[in-house]
Amino acid sequence: MSEEFLSHCRHIAGEPFVLTTAADMAPYLDDWRGRFTGKALAVLRPAGTGQVAQLVKACAHWRIPVVPQGGRTGLVLGSVPDQSGSAVVLSLSRMNQVRSIDAVNRTMTVDAGCILQQVQDAAALHDCLYPLSLASEGSCTVGGNLSTNAGGTAVLRYGNARELCLGLEVVTPQGDIWNGLRALRKDNTGYDLRDLFIGAEGTLGVITAAVLKLHPLPKASSTALVALGTVRDALDLLTLMQDRCGACLTGFELMSAVCLELVATHFPDLPRPFARLHGQYVLLELSSCESEQQASGMLERAVAVALERCIARDAVVATSAAQSRGLWDLREHISMAQAKAGKNIKHDIALPISRIARFIATTDAHLREAFPGCVLVTFGHLGDGNLHYNVAPPEGVPHDEFLDNEPAINRIVHDQVDAFGGSISAEHGIGALKRDELSRYKSPVELDMMRAIKAALDPLGIMNPGKVL
Amino acid sequence: MSEEFLSHCRHIAGEPFVLTTAADMAPYLDDWRGRFTGKALAVLRPAGTGQVAQLVKACAHWRIPVVPQGGRTGLVLGSVPDQSGSAVVLSLSRMNQVRSIDAVNRTMTVDAGCILQQVQDAAALHDCLYPLSLASEGSCTVGGNLSTNAGGTAVLRYGNARELCLGLEVVTPQGDIWNGLRALRKDNTGYDLRDLFIGAEGTLGVITAAVLKLHPLPKASSTALVALGTVRDALDLLTLMQDRCGACLTGFELMSAVCLELVATHFPDLPRPFARLHGQYVLLELSSCESEQQASGMLERAVAVALERCIARDAVVATSAAQSRGLWDLREHISMAQAKAGKNIKHDIALPISRIARFIATTDAHLREAFPGCVLVTFGHLGDGNLHYNVAPPEGVPHDEFLDNEPAINRIVHDQVDAFGGSISAEHGIGALKRDELSRYKSPVELDMMRAIKAALDPLGIMNPGKVL
Repeated sequence: MSEEFLSHCRHIAGEPFVLTTAADMAPYLDDWRGRFTGKALAVLRPAGTGQVAQLVKACAHWRIPVVPQGGRTGLVLGSVPDQSGSAVVLSLSRMNQVRSIDAVNRTMTVDAGCILQQVQDAAALHDCLYPLSLASEGSCTVGGNLSTNAGGTAVLRYGNARELCLGLEVVTPQGDIWNGLRALRKDNTGYDLRDLFIGAEGTLGVITAAVLKLHPLPKASSTALVALGTVRDALDLLTLMQDRCGACLTGFELMSAVCLELVATHFPDLPRPFARLHGQYVLLELSSCESEQQASGMLERAVAVALERCIARDAVVATSAAQSRGLWDLREHISMAQAKAGKNIKHDIALPISRIARFIATTDAHLREAFPGCVLVTFGHLGDGNLHYNVAPPEGVPHDEFLDNEPAINRIVHDQVDAFGGSISAEHGIGALKRDELSRYKSPVELDMMRAIKAALDPLGIMNPGKVL
Repeated sequence: MSEEFLSHCRHIAGEPFVLTTAADMAPYLDDWRGRFTGKALAVLRPAGTGQVAQLVKACAHWRIPVVPQGGRTGLVLGSVPDQSGSAVVLSLSRMNQVRSIDAVNRTMTVDAGCILQQVQDAAALHDCLYPLSLASEGSCTVGGNLSTNAGGTAVLRYGNARELCLGLEVVTPQGDIWNGLRALRKDNTGYDLRDLFIGAEGTLGVITAAVLKLHPLPKASSTALVALGTVRDALDLLTLMQDRCGACLTGFELMSAVCLELVATHFPDLPRPFARLHGQYVLLELSSCESEQQASGMLERAVAVALERCIARDAVVATSAAQSRGLWDLREHISMAQAKAGKNIKHDIALPISRIARFIATTDAHLREAFPGCVLVTFGHLGDGNLHYNVAPPEGVPHDEFLDNEPAINRIVHDQVDAFGGSISAEHGIGALKRDELSRYKSPVELDMMRAIKAALDPLGIMNPGKVL
């Protein structure tokens, strides 16, 4: 049976694009963070949407599970197959053309396999900004960005991947092509299928192309690092900055003292902007459509007010691009400093912004009681309510031993997230990794609706089984 | 049977809130524009979400169709029952409390029956902006705004109702309550049910409450009226303004010469800013989070560049709030001037912005060929690609007679909209009025997915039957 299926696939995609040997398939089966390796019947590499449709039709006919795959940079095991070896991986990597750019409509239509950076660059060539920006932007693809509703550092101003997409082309679980490639900012004609496929992690169909929304390219930006006493002060600063700067505020990143100490220990060459230690730090970025002068003037005035009102304790406003780069380096080296320090247990969570100070205080206390001496490395996109809430072992405790506590630590953190009305997955999605957590925290009413939609659109259950639901 | 059902409803909602006499029900059965009057078994007026759930459960048990109703200001017969008299109207007008406001998180949680203006005012009391702004804001409700994904004048900067909502509470067609009242800007945990209910026009469930996203209140705004030769010039002006002003650009309204002539004829007391006639006009609005001075300075510089580059032919920048009001009055009196001039055939359409000039030229030509002398009154939210494309009778032709051409004119206009990749309903939705048009222009693949979702969530088909699908 599977030989008949594979020969049909070869007929559709061409011999070289149906991979079946262990060596050929290996690069498509590993988890990005190296925690898991799946097995597959084959890896299929279609050249275009028509081939995707034919291949999915074949999978439906032979009841073969399909695992759609983009850049494979996901963090929740959403794009790798399980270990049964019964599924095919459908890699969209060959579908990587920018189909068209419309600078007047500020849209671009791209294949799902385009790399994010390629899209950013193509937009910039037309004096436009595609604002989505992630650590993995050199590898991740548009299809993956949309299937996981990716976030990143520009959400505060421009929204998640969902807000940056106007239309989709999707191959359904029946192998039909839905052409929903609309380039419209207003369209109220029926159910919002677009946003149902966005964030569905490939469980309802395969996104093969998208119309992306572009923005005008800002003329200049200005950066500052502000030292504060507490998270509550950081929230006051956020309100102040939003009131004074509106949409010019494009970055608001929280870092605790522990984070900057970690960076200073492991990257001693990076700048140390303050002589004294403070409790919390916020990295601010303003962008201007006018000029460097407007951005820096607005930032300096706002920071002066924050100091005057004793919200901030100290501040450095970058006066050159290099200095601005140096401040961002501090933020961007936190994860690397953590990796150098050893292993830790990570949480990608979101909370109502107003509850973040109490959430951190309460959850820190619970963890310190259960695991005395544990080190809390907390930073994140405060303007979006998105925290990277990481728990490292107490000094002297072997890291691998501490990792055995992951289930117990997850339970404490996620229970608090739930109690404070938060989300256990802010930007990474559910995949296979958080499926059990999802069923624990979602209401039966919501889970039932999700299952009903899954059964309605994918009655054979062939699309990325074992993920999300 | 229906007596048993009604007595159960009275038990749930209380005697006075189950209306059954013709006189009591009359205010709930009329279309806003007076084109249609429906019939109902009863009008139900629940006091809260619990009662809504019990009432819908009863409707499911007795298989009674449910027509959810907000402010009844819709334009496509979405919130009135048909003439069978078999359905109940479920009016949410008694559920009109602002449940809470969180100025730090910039969210507010409101009952679905809150009037839009009440929500705007409540936000402003906390120095926040709820940007949704419609002509019917004194009557329309949050539930209706969300069920139709309302648009209006602030979409260019802040998006449609969908982009202004973070979470929902919904009563399902089974009478269960889904508490999806999340106040989070990032949440990737499962399918996007929120956006499925938004824009579903009450056919998938009843929205009973919502978490709305607030923005900082701008400090000042500045207005200008620019005269141009052609629609193509208006598109050049849009690109210029977006590049120079970014998110400060909060209004970009196109009006043809015919529109301003109509206003001048029927409202002779309104300002006439230009001595000469021009082909097209654009009303510009900039908002600033800094100061009046910044807004007007930025606007003056941008308009000067537009004149210098011969994109604009003439321009007036308002120097006072009264002058600004006068310019907006011109825009806002177009519909009233049209009503004074007689009847016309209206289209609420959206197009890719870059194709609007060609769309107007082509469609105008088709209509003039088919209906020589017909008058084209075209204006709209150009920054969103949203046109109000209205066709009035030739001079001397009786208006009622001309209206007989509505199907033929709709066909010409909608065929062109479809050919140019546009939408036949930009902000008004489908309701009962455009249902046949929807099935004409949507692909079978898309219609099948919509029907599958409808059947999955509402298998008894009791939620607002005959609307959308």
